[in-house]
Amino acid sequence: LTSGRVEAFSDGIFAIAATLLILNVELPRQSGPGLFEALVEQWPQYATFAASFMTVGIMWLNHHALFVRIHTVDRPFLFLNLLLLLTISFLPFPTEVLGRNFQPGPGGQTAALFYAITCLAIALGFGGVYGYIATHPELVSPRFEGADFMAGAPWFLIGLAAYCVCIPLSFVSPPAVLALIAAVAVYYVFDHLPRPTS
Amino acid sequence: LTSGRVEAFSDGIFAIAATLLILNVELPRQSGPGLFEALVEQWPQYATFAASFMTVGIMWLNHHALFVRIHTVDRPFLFLNLLLLLTISFLPFPTEVLGRNFQPGPGGQTAALFYAITCLAIALGFGGVYGYIATHPELVSPRFEGADFMAGAPWFLIGLAAYCVCIPLSFVSPPAVLALIAAVAVYYVFDHLPRPTS
Amino acid sequence: LTSGRVEAFSDGIFAIAATLLILNVELPRQSGPGLFEALVEQWPQYATFAASFMTVGIMWLNHHALFVRIHTVDRPFLFLNLLLLLTISFLPFPTEVLGRNFQPGPGGQTAALFYAITCLAIALGFGGVYGYIATHPELVSPRFEGADFMAGAPWFLIGLAAYCVCIPLSFVSPPAVLALIAAVAVYYVFDHLPRPTS
Amino acid sequence: LTSGRVEAFSDGIFAIAATLLILNVELPRQSGPGLFEALVEQWPQYATFAASFMTVGIMWLNHHALFVRIHTVDRPFLFLNLLLLLTISFLPFPTEVLGRNFQPGPGGQTAALFYAITCLAIALGFGGVYGYIATHPELVSPRFEGADFMAGAPWFLIGLAAYCVCIPLSFVSPPAVLALIAAVAVYYVFDHLPRPTS
Repeated sequence: LTSGRVEAFSDGIFAIAATLLILNVELPRQSGPGLFEALVEQWPQYATFAASFMTVGIMWLNHHALFVRIHTVDRPFLFLNLLLLLTISFLPFPTEVLGRNFQPGPGGQTAALFYAITCLAIALGFGGVYGYIATHPELVSPRFEGADFMAGAPWFLIGLAAYCVCIPLSFVSPPAVLALIAAVAVYYVFDHLPRPTS
Repeated sequence: LTSGRVEAFSDGIFAIAATLLILNVELPRQSGPGLFEALVEQWPQYATFAASFMTVGIMWLNHHALFVRIHTVDRPFLFLNLLLLLTISFLPFPTEVLGRNFQPGPGGQTAALFYAITCLAIALGFGGVYGYIATHPELVSPRFEGADFMAGAPWFLIGLAAYCVCIPLSFVSPPAVLALIAAVAVYYVFDHLPRPTS
Repeated sequence: LTSGRVEAFSDGIFAIAATLLILNVELPRQSGPGLFEALVEQWPQYATFAASFMTVGIMWLNHHALFVRIHTVDRPFLFLNLLLLLTISFLPFPTEVLGRNFQPGPGGQTAALFYAITCLAIALGFGGVYGYIATHPELVSPRFEGADFMAGAPWFLIGLAAYCVCIPLSFVSPPAVLALIAAVAVYYVFDHLPRPTS
Repeated sequence: LTSGRVEAFSDGIFAIAATLLILNVELPRQSGPGLFEALVEQWPQYATFAASFMTVGIMWLNHHALFVRIHTVDRPFLFLNLLLLLTISFLPFPTEVLGRNFQPGPGGQTAALFYAITCLAIALGFGGVYGYIATHPELVSPRFEGADFMAGAPWFLIGLAAYCVCIPLSFVSPPAVLALIAAVAVYYVFDHLPRPTS
């Protein structure tokens, strides 16, 4: 089994999950003069859409950066990768729940907690794939060294730690949870995995 | 006609069908303090989502394992492959029906039966593609032997048998149907088709 | 501009349009004992789903058969191809309208007419792409001869004629329209474009 | 990081966004004799569907024309490209809002303004990617010259200017906004980026 088709299938899941997010933004019931205010009032749905889109986009980017480092896959790896894709494809649902329940109070706290737990599950899913590669150097392409992956672990742990912080933060402030998750996405665009040796 | 583009098109259908599943999970009507319980109460929708996602993912994996063994396709093969993709793309509907009708009683039995029949149809669709390759060695890549396919038949029949068991089981216990179908998916991640000779 | 990426983009539209069809099948409102009958009663939605899925699948197949015959594309060709993809991606809507309005009477006639007109538009869109290639031999791959395309015109006209017949037929019998369109799809699986000379 | 997989992922987003548009067209509530008129009355939904489909299709085409001119990507480029894809995947929502609020008056004006702003954001997102390539010749493939990109700027500015005109135009006539945006799409099919030197 080569890694090429697994990556193509994974890319499809990432792209579809990111694009489906917009289907959960609600059509305003008002028409006529009230439409403008109705569109403005549902800004939390646009904010959660954007944060989730960037999160999926960045997870895709890092997933791709992992895959260029491997040249073969085995069955446990495929299983771990499917679990990661399962969490990615689940994200549109907590995104919708948070977008519709962004107001202060217990509803917003529950929605932010649900969203943060899903992001944490995505990070753990990514950690499963990452950890499996780090501990199975036979999957790694000859151009890279397995030890580099262990050195790259702190890079992965920053995102994991940020998502863990979001769990208690969701009881304090749903907007802060959303801002932190969007910040993690932007951070990962500019940080990156170890480069090839040689 | 080469098999490459047929596989790319099929991969697209598998990836989209898996990712669309989340759109059928229902947004809770409650907001505020009742949101937490409402999210917990619809756990059957998450369970059916996960089981169907893994089933589609594993069918994709085995479909891919079949396609690396062939190097050309003909028209009857394309027709059988389209029938398989038809059953795959139908799966989100019985998944939604089962997730919303998971309670004990006739509704849950009907939904589990509908879900099990769809899974059986997918297995039969896969069997059609598999059987056609096994009986048409001219499609098989020179690196593989047609006889290996006949030897691999028991591998395929295990899943078929499990889905057949789900038909009567649906009258007894919808959760057991879901658990068995999820178990088949996990089983097929780790079992596999005959390896290339040489 | 090479034809490869245009084909990949087109393949994506075909695969997504085929897989989205299931989202328009309605979740039955009944639960409990009434669920079985409710699922059976909405059989027209499954029939229109299957007919449209096969139609999109076969259009993909023939679109692919056209593209292996060309090696370059120009701007008017891209425009005609986009028009074809526009009609393909529109198909889920008339499919939904026909599946929900299948009963005898003016509603079913209107829905069947709308469905038949969309299929005719798809065939005309395909005819535009086909005709442009037939009259622009500079796009055709050296392995094929442009004259073969003119010889293949009757092959295309059979489908066009069948869809034209569906227009008056929709006033007589919506089920007959659906059956004829499904028959055209099956017919095109087994018939095919001229083979390469050489 | 090579540009190939970034383009494949982007192509997926474009294809999915274009095909999802149809899901926002409303199923008429009338059945029976009233179905025909109901289908005719919602023509603005078909018009906005077609305009957005062509806009996404043409943006894909021009995005592809940009990517054949580069051979490597860096992190800021990836971030700008994700922002462009974010605006593309948002388009189905303002398309739905405009299709349902096309009548004269403040509702139609708001919807047309929202649609025009989204198209302007898409153009600005495209401008960000275009401008980054024009100012970073190290990304440009050796077959092309960076200076050509600066020469192509007026080509890009025509679309940007047309979308800017749509902002005030939305207060005058929503249909004119839609017609202008569709005209821009058709214009870009036939106009094109500078050809390779040599």
